[in-house]
Amino acid sequence: MKVQSSRDFKLQRDVDYGTPEQNKAVKQIVADIKQEGDAALFRYTEKFDGARLSRDNVRVTQEELQAAYKHVEDSFVSAIRAAADNIRAFHARQKRNSWMDLQPDGTILGQIIRPLQRVGVYVPGGKASYPSSVLMNVIPAQIAGVPEIVMVTPPATGGKEGIDPYILVAAAEAGVNEIYRVGGAQAVAALAFGTESIAPVDKICGPGNIYVALAKREVYGAVDIDSIAGPSEIVVLADDTAEPAYIAADLLSQAEHDEMASAILVTPSQALAEAVAAEVERQLRVLPREAIARASVDNYGAIIVVETLEEGISVVNRLAPEHLEIVTQDPMALTGAVRNAGAIFLGPYSSEPVGDYFAGPNHIIPTNGTARFSSPVDVDDFIKKSSLIYYSKEALLRDGKTIIELARREGLEAHARAVEIRLENEAKGGEADGE
Amino acid sequence: MKVQSSRDFKLQRDVDYGTPEQNKAVKQIVADIKQEGDAALFRYTEKFDGARLSRDNVRVTQEELQAAYKHVEDSFVSAIRAAADNIRAFHARQKRNSWMDLQPDGTILGQIIRPLQRVGVYVPGGKASYPSSVLMNVIPAQIAGVPEIVMVTPPATGGKEGIDPYILVAAAEAGVNEIYRVGGAQAVAALAFGTESIAPVDKICGPGNIYVALAKREVYGAVDIDSIAGPSEIVVLADDTAEPAYIAADLLSQAEHDEMASAILVTPSQALAEAVAAEVERQLRVLPREAIARASVDNYGAIIVVETLEEGISVVNRLAPEHLEIVTQDPMALTGAVRNAGAIFLGPYSSEPVGDYFAGPNHIIPTNGTARFSSPVDVDDFIKKSSLIYYSKEALLRDGKTIIELARREGLEAHARAVEIRLENEAKGGEADGE
Repeated sequence: MKVQSSRDFKLQRDVDYGTPEQNKAVKQIVADIKQEGDAALFRYTEKFDGARLSRDNVRVTQEELQAAYKHVEDSFVSAIRAAADNIRAFHARQKRNSWMDLQPDGTILGQIIRPLQRVGVYVPGGKASYPSSVLMNVIPAQIAGVPEIVMVTPPATGGKEGIDPYILVAAAEAGVNEIYRVGGAQAVAALAFGTESIAPVDKICGPGNIYVALAKREVYGAVDIDSIAGPSEIVVLADDTAEPAYIAADLLSQAEHDEMASAILVTPSQALAEAVAAEVERQLRVLPREAIARASVDNYGAIIVVETLEEGISVVNRLAPEHLEIVTQDPMALTGAVRNAGAIFLGPYSSEPVGDYFAGPNHIIPTNGTARFSSPVDVDDFIKKSSLIYYSKEALLRDGKTIIELARREGLEAHARAVEIRLENEAKGGEADGE
Repeated sequence: MKVQSSRDFKLQRDVDYGTPEQNKAVKQIVADIKQEGDAALFRYTEKFDGARLSRDNVRVTQEELQAAYKHVEDSFVSAIRAAADNIRAFHARQKRNSWMDLQPDGTILGQIIRPLQRVGVYVPGGKASYPSSVLMNVIPAQIAGVPEIVMVTPPATGGKEGIDPYILVAAAEAGVNEIYRVGGAQAVAALAFGTESIAPVDKICGPGNIYVALAKREVYGAVDIDSIAGPSEIVVLADDTAEPAYIAADLLSQAEHDEMASAILVTPSQALAEAVAAEVERQLRVLPREAIARASVDNYGAIIVVETLEEGISVVNRLAPEHLEIVTQDPMALTGAVRNAGAIFLGPYSSEPVGDYFAGPNHIIPTNGTARFSSPVDVDDFIKKSSLIYYSKEALLRDGKTIIELARREGLEAHARAVEIRLENEAKGGEADGE
């Protein structure tokens, strides 16, 4: 990694919006599913995944779900349970109550918090299938009180219908038991519009390849979607109390994700900068995913030497990283000045993987600078709010003229009259003149 | 209005995504502003609005803002102040605190709530400019703690630079004093990317014409945007205790908005259905915006007669209306069963305009069925959350092996090693082997 000294470092990565051909293909798939339902869903599944499905076998059975436990280690089950407990405990603290404001004149105003009714979680197949992501999508929805959570995941390719048993166990541990073996744009469209086999949902979340991402954009509006994940990043802000080997390992844990991932160290210590650069190279050489991590480090990695930690914080705020580690003498002292970061890891023991898998906060976090205005996935993503207005007669008689004035000022006469007819009628004793 | 008896009534309105020409024009404008800044902003303002601007006069001055008060009635200023007080009081109850969970082993987990730094509010010009919407967009952002709130609104056409004084007074009363006289797609692009005159924002909200809506979609990702408002609707669920003239007036207050607006009565009472139909016609004939309201009623209005109020609730939940009025003997008794509605108005005195202008809840509410999964504008729209993880040494030593197991299971070796290097090093007494 190159050591740079620059106040103007800017991270620029393009988001993939697909080729025109990919966009066209996805539009066609979505339209076909909307029109034909299961027939199109099964046709595309055979075409893209090589699996022949019907209404009888599209849904994963309880027996399959239970059988998956035989194919995973007991220690994995324990680990997933421990992680799920922590994730549940953290997200439970985000749950909110409906509230009311009862006023002396009898008026009641309020905000009603309700869960979405039905949510679909997309889980990618193959190497990109992560049991931890199942927990991170499903548990906040459960805590929100969503009564129906459904999962879709592609069947294994080559005519087999098996799904990774680790994914099935994670789903079962999270409490999902409505799972369909479909994937790709066709699965997203089926969730959005429903087919004979799959009832439509209100929101679709979970990561996927470019076809899945484009299909989510295409169905947005008919249903809600989560944000489309971009390339991921970590920024470590450290001083010379930091252990270079730890920092290097944390940078590489981000870099191994993807060639577009970005790992950046910001430090006022030239010595730490050089030590970390050497450590990164040393650790890189023995990493299984060396090629990916090296591409990430070479293209989007940086070690930025700043004058002071305060300047470091201003670099952090400009980058608005998904993950921020603060590894300094007194990390809490700097936390108040952080304006933009999706998740903040403090101190030498809060390595990013602790949060990715286990601590409890969500690992789905805004990427690519969007932490400026968005937030990690949480319970709020699975609720909706309704306003409640019960206006009393006394309040309407008191405020009616003011409301009429504002409505007339905006040229909305029928708005004014809807209030006026009540005022006039109540003045006459409650007998409407329209009768 | 036709009285229908149908369980299968479905409201279908298309959302306007613009013509290919409009989309192309907007892309060009956005690209030009991004590239050229003020030069393009002023060029498009002259072209579309006929106003010649420069860095010296693009921003509305304090003197203009104060002068606007001379052009509005004192009663308007009082009305706006009273409305603003109510809106502030309601939204203040939505404000949330950052929180921490301090665990006995020294670990601290938390969620940090912070305001966005800078928000742009678009206010349309001409007849669609509503002072009440200024309050509804600005006040929640203020309550959230957004330090910089900036407004853009088109200059009056025909070479003049005047802005509707009612809008300026509403802005001043809401506390906005950074206002630029630009509008259209060029204003949206200026807010998103910044120009020499206008610093970029983190989020853009507020309604506008098709060019504004398309520009918001185009810049989404670089900044956050609010949802794109669709055609608006009201559903009234009423029994024979309701006053037909009130119900008709409320239906028309929605219908006068726009030819695509939808006003629907759902009732188990055939007598009420017929009385409301007659009242609608009677009131329509003397309405200034009769043509608009009549088109709305004819095309998207309905009176649906159901067997029971419970069946009525299920129709409501299927429609997921923006506004729902429940005007029955005991409206609270039905409220618990409402799953999908943006704002719920209870009883005979809670006419929709009470909420549109005055009561306190926001009048920007999900339209066209999206109340299934989205919510009225509120303080949450102007905050972002960060997770906080301070993991203690004790906790890492205890949980490290579990985290390593989960990381290896997902094939992310560098993740595992970032934890492992700490475990090994701490076992050796804290001297990293990388040195």
